[in-house]
Amino acid sequence: MNADEQAIRAVVARWHGATADGDVETVLTLMADDVVFLVAGQPPMRGRAAFASGLRKLLSTHRIESTGDVKEVAVSGDLAYCWTELTVRIVPQAGGDAVTRAGNALSILRKQADGAWVVVRDANMLAVAA
Amino acid sequence: MNADEQAIRAVVARWHGATADGDVETVLTLMADDVVFLVAGQPPMRGRAAFASGLRKLLSTHRIESTGDVKEVAVSGDLAYCWTELTVRIVPQAGGDAVTRAGNALSILRKQADGAWVVVRDANMLAVAA
Repeated sequence: MNADEQAIRAVVARWHGATADGDVETVLTLMADDVVFLVAGQPPMRGRAAFASGLRKLLSTHRIESTGDVKEVAVSGDLAYCWTELTVRIVPQAGGDAVTRAGNALSILRKQADGAWVVVRDANMLAVAA
Repeated sequence: MNADEQAIRAVVARWHGATADGDVETVLTLMADDVVFLVAGQPPMRGRAAFASGLRKLLSTHRIESTGDVKEVAVSGDLAYCWTELTVRIVPQAGGDAVTRAGNALSILRKQADGAWVVVRDANMLAVAA
């Protein structure tokens, strides 16, 4: 596994860890300012600020426990994709039933001028798990 | 727009045209043998043969009318991604109600040794349209 693939796997791991910790600022360092999140049934969510706003709102009432199994990373120059099988559990802080969503995600990453990899496009195909 | 981006947009256009014509053989030339299709709520569909089987089965009873608005193409070396906003109408040949699905798709393409671009990974976020 080369240095770029290792760096991209570290981005995925940091994303899950920081989200579980409620550390929104760290999660935001892992995406480009003009990131786009794609999901079924909703218009594209454009930009780091929109993501931050949504995540902060969710974390004000819930905690997020997520795990990701990286199925594949491929790199060419400053462009890469990462296919991950995700499980995300959204747990109400006030108690009550958690919701678990699971499925595949396909993320596009770009290597920045400083050598850091960040997510620029993300396709989320998670569905409510039985 | 450079030659690679033009070639990738031509792949998308050919995919829609050949699907509408029921020309499965041509659609199959536009993907790698080890292509993977990702969609919510189902396990990954792996390989050109699985895709061919599914498409042939659907086309035996329906026709497919699809349009794609390419939102973005980005290329680095032999790797590219293409974000497309799709509308797919599945029309029963025997008559009856068509089903329309719409939404975003994010495809990964690879340039082959012969210079042709083919789809290697596809994230489909289409949902039944209201």
